[in-house]
Amino acid sequence: AKIFNILVLPGDGIGPEVMAEAVKVLKVFETPERKFELRQELIGGCSIDANGKSVTEEVKQAALDSDAVLFAAVGGPKWDNQRRGLDGPEGGLLQLRKAMDIYANLRPCSSTSPSASIAKEFSPFKHDVIEGVDFVVVRENCGGAYFGRKVEEETYAMDEWGYSEAEIQRVTRLSAEVALRHNPPWPLISLDKANVLASSRLWRRVVDKTMAAEYPQVKLVHQLADSASLILATNPRSLNGVILADNTFGDMISDQAGSIVGTLGVLPSASLNGLPGDKTLKTRPYGLYEPTHGSAPTIAGQNIANPVAMILCVALMFRYSLGMDDEARRVEDAVRKVLDSGLRTPDLGGKAGTKEVGDAIVSAL
Amino acid sequence: AKIFNILVLPGDGIGPEVMAEAVKVLKVFETPERKFELRQELIGGCSIDANGKSVTEEVKQAALDSDAVLFAAVGGPKWDNQRRGLDGPEGGLLQLRKAMDIYANLRPCSSTSPSASIAKEFSPFKHDVIEGVDFVVVRENCGGAYFGRKVEEETYAMDEWGYSEAEIQRVTRLSAEVALRHNPPWPLISLDKANVLASSRLWRRVVDKTMAAEYPQVKLVHQLADSASLILATNPRSLNGVILADNTFGDMISDQAGSIVGTLGVLPSASLNGLPGDKTLKTRPYGLYEPTHGSAPTIAGQNIANPVAMILCVALMFRYSLGMDDEARRVEDAVRKVLDSGLRTPDLGGKAGTKEVGDAIVSAL
Ligand SMILES: CC(C)[C@H](C(=O)O)[C@@H](O)C(=O)O
Ligand SMILES: CC(C)[C@H](C(=O)O)[C@@H](O)C(=O)O
Repeated sequence: AKIFNILVLPGDGIGPEVMAEAVKVLKVFETPERKFELRQELIGGCSIDANGKSVTEEVKQAALDSDAVLFAAVGGPKWDNQRRGLDGPEGGLLQLRKAMDIYANLRPCSSTSPSASIAKEFSPFKHDVIEGVDFVVVRENCGGAYFGRKVEEETYAMDEWGYSEAEIQRVTRLSAEVALRHNPPWPLISLDKANVLASSRLWRRVVDKTMAAEYPQVKLVHQLADSASLILATNPRSLNGVILADNTFGDMISDQAGSIVGTLGVLPSASLNGLPGDKTLKTRPYGLYEPTHGSAPTIAGQNIANPVAMILCVALMFRYSLGMDDEARRVEDAVRKVLDSGLRTPDLGGKAGTKEVGDAIVSAL
Repeated sequence: AKIFNILVLPGDGIGPEVMAEAVKVLKVFETPERKFELRQELIGGCSIDANGKSVTEEVKQAALDSDAVLFAAVGGPKWDNQRRGLDGPEGGLLQLRKAMDIYANLRPCSSTSPSASIAKEFSPFKHDVIEGVDFVVVRENCGGAYFGRKVEEETYAMDEWGYSEAEIQRVTRLSAEVALRHNPPWPLISLDKANVLASSRLWRRVVDKTMAAEYPQVKLVHQLADSASLILATNPRSLNGVILADNTFGDMISDQAGSIVGTLGVLPSASLNGLPGDKTLKTRPYGLYEPTHGSAPTIAGQNIANPVAMILCVALMFRYSLGMDDEARRVEDAVRKVLDSGLRTPDLGGKAGTKEVGDAIVSAL
């Protein structure tokens, strides 16, 4: 039998609850020919409490030994203000991104399946504005200002916002592959501030060069990042495609993209160092799958957290790490069915518990 | 008589047309006791054509000698791709910002007067989402990544994203003053990524210190910039207040804020180095007023450009540079009346020309 090694990182707050439902869903897909070997470890605040650091070397190694990582959420008031940056709970995640070199963070955003009924009710936008919206944001995840050299003095602080050609090239390639695998092929919309930033000018030059040489068949559009944030809120359909951005602009744009559906509770994300079948990869392909919402400590332990985003992470993992496209679609269809039926957690105006929603999705499968 | 020296910079594209209407409106407020001395100069593409650079030293000096600067728009296909950064048409604006040290860029955003009827029709948001939205974004305008040291090599590029305590302090003070002068007093909502960036941690520390020492009466909230971009699109009313951000995050957030009303055609901005009555100023107070839209070269010269944003710049100039609060409100009321009457340029679904709208606003005064 084919065995997939999955590292499971529930983390803090509502993390363990939503993860339990995702694991239930995952198990549905075990067959005599396909087994999931799960290894569960600590990350974030709970790891600080147990080990004095937000992620141990052992857990990083476990991530590198796995076929994919399911990550729920980290952080909470217990650790706030005491620890920060790489030392805080979120540092566990940042360190893992770096260790796995998962340089591309994907956030799909669609006003159609599986979140159509949610977008209809929860989107802050008028219906005709979001109708037919279908894009994925690819955020560069391991470089730029968030990982650059830092200066931190009493009266001056600085982050180096730098990119190398190689860093831009690889995330451009991955984005182009995502564009090509979409049916019909998506355009690539690359964001930058080439009118102001040196790193953006290199960004634009490398994207241009890479696309012209390797993906001439993919339509390429450059868009200033500030305008993009306005367009995303006024005419989001015009950004249908792969929206590629550096770590900083991508952070802003990918969070803003959550507004289309109107709630992070149903939005998964994938962080990758390659796509299945990528011939240029020197390591095995790594993928970390995490919901876009946080650890929501105030509602933890009450069986009211929404497990949908975490469950949809399983679908993304099937698609982007395990080569299980059909199974990915089946998970998404089951989620859609349950959401459409009105069986929802309180954040979506329903009365169902976390477990009930998970069970319903399992039944729908 | 009191004489105000106003530097008028029409720039490129639709700039001259909309500026002409703003000047008409300005002239309405001349009295035997108050004169406006206007000096018109080149900036942007037209300055490149005439002088080989996007702004001359002479024009910079004229700005420093003025009580306020009215700026319309720069750039166009004629200069695209030939020149970039500080050398391109927009470089004229960036250089002027630096020369005048106008470190605070203000963008008011309100779903009420004067743009209520426009927001109602043009906002992409559901009515109840934007009802009662009323905030101003204050973007730090002279520091950070956009003005930091740059490295630009063949395969590597970098921008230093740095801030000094003094730079953060002064824009915090100005923001707090804007908050206090609002009725009722606004909270100050400061954006950063203190969980990741060193410059953001200094930002947060200096904002905290400055507010505690000098403005304990102003409510202070810190908000992560990425979450803010989501909140701005899902629950913008909860950001009512002064939204303070550094150059990069402020660039993204202030453009995104244009989505509330739904069109940049009616949105002015002010760039300042102080407020009227500011005792700490070492120079005279400088203000540059510019619409948030661009030079729209494709519709230039056809008398169809919308002059409203530029005319509302006159109102902001009255308020923030000339100490003419009542007159500012009168301009805004006149604009509201005309927009409500349906007399509008084609971008707002109307049939009126640029001049007609300007004339109607003058009549309403
Ligand atoms: C927690 C934080 C470090 C992280 C980031 O900015 O990368 C988060 O905001 C995200 O977007 O995943
Ligand atoms: C033209 C450009 C340099 C400028 C900026 O980014 O500052 C513009 O986008 C703005 O927001 O005023």
